[in-house]
Amino acid sequence: MADKDTVTACLILIGNEILSGRTQDKNLNFLATGLNEIGIQMREARVIPDIREKIVATVNECRAEFDYVFTTGGIGPTHDDITSECIAEAFGVKMYRDQEIVDLLNSYMKNRGNSEMNEARMRMATFPEGAVLIKNEVSAAPGYMIENVFVMAGVPRIMQGMFQEAKAHLEGGKTVQARGLAVDLPEGTIAEPLALVQARFKEVDIGSYPQMREVGFRVSVVARGTDPDRLDQVISELMQILRDIGGNPEEEDLNTAQSTSHVDD
Amino acid sequence: MADKDTVTACLILIGNEILSGRTQDKNLNFLATGLNEIGIQMREARVIPDIREKIVATVNECRAEFDYVFTTGGIGPTHDDITSECIAEAFGVKMYRDQEIVDLLNSYMKNRGNSEMNEARMRMATFPEGAVLIKNEVSAAPGYMIENVFVMAGVPRIMQGMFQEAKAHLEGGKTVQARGLAVDLPEGTIAEPLALVQARFKEVDIGSYPQMREVGFRVSVVARGTDPDRLDQVISELMQILRDIGGNPEEEDLNTAQSTSHVDD
Repeated sequence: MADKDTVTACLILIGNEILSGRTQDKNLNFLATGLNEIGIQMREARVIPDIREKIVATVNECRAEFDYVFTTGGIGPTHDDITSECIAEAFGVKMYRDQEIVDLLNSYMKNRGNSEMNEARMRMATFPEGAVLIKNEVSAAPGYMIENVFVMAGVPRIMQGMFQEAKAHLEGGKTVQARGLAVDLPEGTIAEPLALVQARFKEVDIGSYPQMREVGFRVSVVARGTDPDRLDQVISELMQILRDIGGNPEEEDLNTAQSTSHVDD
Repeated sequence: MADKDTVTACLILIGNEILSGRTQDKNLNFLATGLNEIGIQMREARVIPDIREKIVATVNECRAEFDYVFTTGGIGPTHDDITSECIAEAFGVKMYRDQEIVDLLNSYMKNRGNSEMNEARMRMATFPEGAVLIKNEVSAAPGYMIENVFVMAGVPRIMQGMFQEAKAHLEGGKTVQARGLAVDLPEGTIAEPLALVQARFKEVDIGSYPQMREVGFRVSVVARGTDPDRLDQVISELMQILRDIGGNPEEEDLNTAQSTSHVDD
């Protein structure tokens, strides 16, 4: 991965509960932001059910296409936690039981008083051969990496801890930065000037995000790219053009602004 | 689609803004729930960027695999709204301009006073040949269906209106229902009994969802399937078994409970 400017990632969210509507996913947004901070661009995310063939095929397709793949979910002790078997199958390797993790889980269970090690929990000490374990400070049972695939828990707090540990193994490229503005004109009115600026700054990705309001219009325009000077140029040109066509644009702080997606008028 | 018990769907969320972490998606959860209510099971969701080849390939892959495909995002007037061109390419058809929609947008713009029809907005009146338009009561510019693919806006409020209109074209199978319980035992402790019950009720999908709490354990167990009597049986057997191993299970109202996903202990 060394010396690449653009490093890509795909996230695979494994779990029936997101597809059934029961659970609102929180991991995609966290990882999209966290990866970008270290120079890795999330280029795709997939939500798939706990079905063996589907998991194996998706992991194999994605690990060939992207620099890194992250999975969340399905590494607990219950019958519906089948991610590790699927990862082993995807890589064509066997599973092994890690005695150090057996001991770790044993002492973790003892400390909690009302739990004991059993066959179900042994599954959390069983990994595809070749896995490099990733510490779990929250609930002991580790995640792991195998080649370019990072296997993490689905519970957000546990996943977030694992991601912190995983960072030591990740090598990013240039960080994508963003500059934004908001303007009180409808999207259809600003579309043509936006397209003209986009055509001149091909290495910048200009996005237009309308917001539904009861009264009046508001569109957020976001310029993203790896060269901050070019981003500043794009935003300052756009500010001028939008003023010229009668708008009242304001620079927007992208750390606080969140809008809904595409499509207006 | 007639007389099928199991009808499947895939959702394709099109938009860089979700992958960059800027926007928290709200459409997946809404559609997962809304589709299930009419007997359609969301079996996969993909979040992909505004890249032509990616959109075309994903649409073609998914429309072959699932009964229905829904896309959200990318049908507005700006340069980053490229979904319709991609749909036309995926189906190998040309685009046409729909005069009725041109007139509709014209009068919509006139009523809003400060907008006028222009080339950018004309794009929202331009569709792949063979598209059956889906009314947009919120902001006029329609979505559409073409064969088994439904193309909708990304802004949640507009998408939700389009989905109501789209329902007339959708034929579901049996509705998946759910029953749940919550228990004060760790997941590793209940894993074996869960697996035994799952093995006996193969047509029921039993999921186990631990919740992180500062003090004590809590696991939600959800049984999903199309036969409500079997679901009741599963839950009552599980209640008994969990009581027998020292737990204090309670039936859970799935309309109000939301948990994070998989993995514990």
